[in-house]
Amino acid sequence: MERLNPRSVLVTGSNRGIGLEMIKQLAEKSNPPQWIFATCRDPEGPRTQDLRTLAAQHQEIVIIPLNITDPSSIKSAVTMVTERLNGTGLNLLINNAGIASHDSKVESQAPEAMAEVYKTNVIGPMMISQAFLPLLRKASRDSPKKGMSCSKASIVNMSSYAGSITEVYLWNYGQVVPYRCSKAALNMLTRCQSLSFRDDEILCVTLHPGWVLTDMGGNMAQMTASSSVAAILNLLADLSEKETGTFLNWEGKVLPW
Amino acid sequence: MERLNPRSVLVTGSNRGIGLEMIKQLAEKSNPPQWIFATCRDPEGPRTQDLRTLAAQHQEIVIIPLNITDPSSIKSAVTMVTERLNGTGLNLLINNAGIASHDSKVESQAPEAMAEVYKTNVIGPMMISQAFLPLLRKASRDSPKKGMSCSKASIVNMSSYAGSITEVYLWNYGQVVPYRCSKAALNMLTRCQSLSFRDDEILCVTLHPGWVLTDMGGNMAQMTASSSVAAILNLLADLSEKETGTFLNWEGKVLPW
Repeated sequence: MERLNPRSVLVTGSNRGIGLEMIKQLAEKSNPPQWIFATCRDPEGPRTQDLRTLAAQHQEIVIIPLNITDPSSIKSAVTMVTERLNGTGLNLLINNAGIASHDSKVESQAPEAMAEVYKTNVIGPMMISQAFLPLLRKASRDSPKKGMSCSKASIVNMSSYAGSITEVYLWNYGQVVPYRCSKAALNMLTRCQSLSFRDDEILCVTLHPGWVLTDMGGNMAQMTASSSVAAILNLLADLSEKETGTFLNWEGKVLPW
Repeated sequence: MERLNPRSVLVTGSNRGIGLEMIKQLAEKSNPPQWIFATCRDPEGPRTQDLRTLAAQHQEIVIIPLNITDPSSIKSAVTMVTERLNGTGLNLLINNAGIASHDSKVESQAPEAMAEVYKTNVIGPMMISQAFLPLLRKASRDSPKKGMSCSKASIVNMSSYAGSITEVYLWNYGQVVPYRCSKAALNMLTRCQSLSFRDDEILCVTLHPGWVLTDMGGNMAQMTASSSVAAILNLLADLSEKETGTFLNWEGKVLPW
């Protein structure tokens, strides 16, 4: 993961689970990014204590309040990040924030949960990517490197193998239709982003982090957040224009849509 | 298409385009269904004139008011259909109603359109399928036929190749991110329905009707609604449990997710 060397990174949903672990491992690199923007809805809340403790130990970490479904919150966050970057671009945007859906059956799934999960897991990442696009484009333009890389300019969407229409992964563990539909749609969004931002040389990829032991993953999961994130950061270091628009697991294996 | 012989069919969004053509071709069969439920939002409106004219010529056609995004409207429609069926089940549910999205770029797509299109194209078909599930199950249970078929018990979701994450069909014609994301999600919903309703022997399939000359398809489209629907009704006659959970075009070709 030392080979991944963006100057600036932003991770949404970074107060818990995979997001928090990403901030930690990025900050603990021997060559950490100059700016690690850790966003979360409630920076002062009790569930952000671990992130605050971590930030107190690493001056690179900047905690930014951000509700990814609220346009005015997004606007404020962009202003704060832009000020810190002081004329430079944002290299790596990790759309990690997302919500699961309580399990219920296809036949009785409430429509409200469908709309809510889509709003957070698809529309949110779309709005965040739009809002930070000028900074991503700036990073790409200002880079002396040719081609695409996560160290230069990239949008990484945290998806799930549960969103693979081909596999319908872990169906017997939970039908979770709102979650599955949202992740299939997020994968489509990623493909559209990859086509749309190709000329800008912004790498866009959608990732399955594994079934990870977090609040969201539950206690039957098969991997620690630590090992998942270590693998993902190694993987990001290796990505190039060949991988833009693909759906990969934490080890870089191409997954079926 | 004479081999397709459900006793009862319901088609949503049947006052125009592909939906209207389906009602027409079903009613003009030499062996038409006993009940052809043609639903639309505004049965009395000017855009429903063609359907009213058609219904006046075919006693099998019953026009039912239905807004697929409104739970109370759905409930009323189910009551009306149940009364007509008089103790029998519904064989074939065609979730045809849907909306397109105005073209705009990934980088400037409005979040409101994302939510609106998802509500109509994904949450609507989910709610309609839930609401008519008891009648579909009844049709399946009461049928003497073994296995699955569209003449016995089936949910057909009208999707689009534009929702293929693999292909991102017609990208250069329009980015239409809300539409693409909604159709990818509808494909996932179909897969979930196929798994969930397998034991009920309800066949679930998602179809690309072709790029059809309708209000939605625009005037650059490559096929008439008449030829698309003729092919689709022939295809439906051939489907069995082998095809449940698949994504097919009007000719029965399996499409990549």
